[in-house]
Amino acid sequence: MAEARSLFAAERVARLATVGADGTPHLVPVTFALRGDTVVIAVDHKPKRTTDLKRLRNIEAQPRVSLLADHYTEDWARLWWVRADGTARVVREGGPVGELVAKYPQYADRPPAGPVILVAITSWRGWAASGG
Amino acid sequence: MAEARSLFAAERVARLATVGADGTPHLVPVTFALRGDTVVIAVDHKPKRTTDLKRLRNIEAQPRVSLLADHYTEDWARLWWVRADGTARVVREGGPVGELVAKYPQYADRPPAGPVILVAITSWRGWAASGG
Repeated sequence: MAEARSLFAAERVARLATVGADGTPHLVPVTFALRGDTVVIAVDHKPKRTTDLKRLRNIEAQPRVSLLADHYTEDWARLWWVRADGTARVVREGGPVGELVAKYPQYADRPPAGPVILVAITSWRGWAASGG
Repeated sequence: MAEARSLFAAERVARLATVGADGTPHLVPVTFALRGDTVVIAVDHKPKRTTDLKRLRNIEAQPRVSLLADHYTEDWARLWWVRADGTARVVREGGPVGELVAKYPQYADRPPAGPVILVAITSWRGWAASGG
């Protein structure tokens, strides 16, 4: 799914689904960058709370995660989405944020300094209304 | 969270996270309508496959689901999202689709005829970059 992968890579936002130890899903929007077949996600700068975010606790209990980029338009013949499923791990310090900083000028003044989530993608799935 | 609820209700697309029997998350974008504190989601018209979709199998195994509406903009001071967590059930026939048809003109010519997912929302969570 080279096309699905490149559509996903170009999107500005995706959604990260993790699963809690109690089996319930958790969803947050994320900025991200692709580094080979690994999705790199920085955790927002939020002093103190950063290291205890639910998404990080969830990943440590259940590393299987799902990411979704979707394109909505009122012309439903042009809808599409790409889902990337994979295995996540958390890098508490010194994670690779170069691709993130390159993709988002917003990081230029304040590069991500907190934990980084690395998702090794094992499955790219794409769907388009038109089949295109 | 009356404001979170109304922001969510007005969005055109949300993402539905379900969890498989094996504990892995699954994500799809969905059109939806709010009916009181219940989110109504129609399943796309796809002959044969419709009744065996993974999202439906997942809900039957694990009814806890999460829905996310998010607003992305390059001005990160204006980001916001709303998450609705709840308990889902599947109505195989004759589900309440009136609010969906009223919200989306696209359904006028072809009202949803397949299974309907009803999510009773137990928690509305909202976040905005500006705190607004």
